[in-house]
Amino acid sequence: MRILGIDPGIGTVGFGVIDAERGKNTYVACGVITTPPNTALSPRLDMIYNDLNEIIVTFAPAEIAVEELFFSKNITTGIAVAHGRGVILLSAYRSGVPVFEYTPMQVKQAVVGYGGAQKRQVIYMIQKLLHMSKPPRPDDAADALALAICHARSRTSALTAEGESGPCSTI
Amino acid sequence: MRILGIDPGIGTVGFGVIDAERGKNTYVACGVITTPPNTALSPRLDMIYNDLNEIIVTFAPAEIAVEELFFSKNITTGIAVAHGRGVILLSAYRSGVPVFEYTPMQVKQAVVGYGGAQKRQVIYMIQKLLHMSKPPRPDDAADALALAICHARSRTSALTAEGESGPCSTI
Repeated sequence: MRILGIDPGIGTVGFGVIDAERGKNTYVACGVITTPPNTALSPRLDMIYNDLNEIIVTFAPAEIAVEELFFSKNITTGIAVAHGRGVILLSAYRSGVPVFEYTPMQVKQAVVGYGGAQKRQVIYMIQKLLHMSKPPRPDDAADALALAICHARSRTSALTAEGESGPCSTI
Repeated sequence: MRILGIDPGIGTVGFGVIDAERGKNTYVACGVITTPPNTALSPRLDMIYNDLNEIIVTFAPAEIAVEELFFSKNITTGIAVAHGRGVILLSAYRSGVPVFEYTPMQVKQAVVGYGGAQKRQVIYMIQKLLHMSKPPRPDDAADALALAICHARSRTSALTAEGESGPCSTI
């Protein structure tokens, strides 16, 4: 089953695609949508919406995992990211692909086994789990792959344990 | 010139339409887009996007004024509203209608003449300025009319004073 992970943003939106079959995850693609700084918010939202629509059509994921917002830092940045996440959810919803959400802590827990893991530990584990020759880059693309892995693991463990969806929720 | 004012939200989005000609503002319509509570965020965003697209097609505004977000209260609500505002800006941008933004303080200043005005004062002035037989209802629709009036006044004073756009910015 193909999974698209999305790390929301306004300047940079990470995306990561994997194929998850019987507990084995295979790397397909990853990258970022970028929008120019010092540009009005509306055209940046339009770029994100259009590019994400294209990514969904290109890779045809069966399910999409989007990171929840977590604000411990800059509220102004957080508000801009929430605008971006709004159009990301809209794009995903209108594509008809089921969408799930995970907190950053759930993602780290699933990939590294520890919710407080450092970014470099997460990147190391992504490379290992997906048998990549190099560490995934840039960070936002790596985060998106981590989300896809988190969703794959959540699905697998839930199917094994309960025969239904796991610690994730449709948004 | 027809102006559409929009008061962003996720449960309730207010809209207000006026015609502004030579300093005289005429009421056209106002109302709210509502989305059901206890419903996932994605379908609510889709409802807002679809309904706003329809409102823009129906009333064919020449310009759109959207309220800026101001968070002094609940950050969780603020984040949800920012998601909604993202799809509102996307809908407006994709319609090709120029979009402008104003802070709540700018709106009160323009409508009542005092940035710290109470809501009832704003509603009273909207009714008076637009020669409405009753006070506009509900509050979100009234706020949207106030935004439209604010934009009309901003345009008029700027055109008189400088021959170009006023204290508003394209978003």
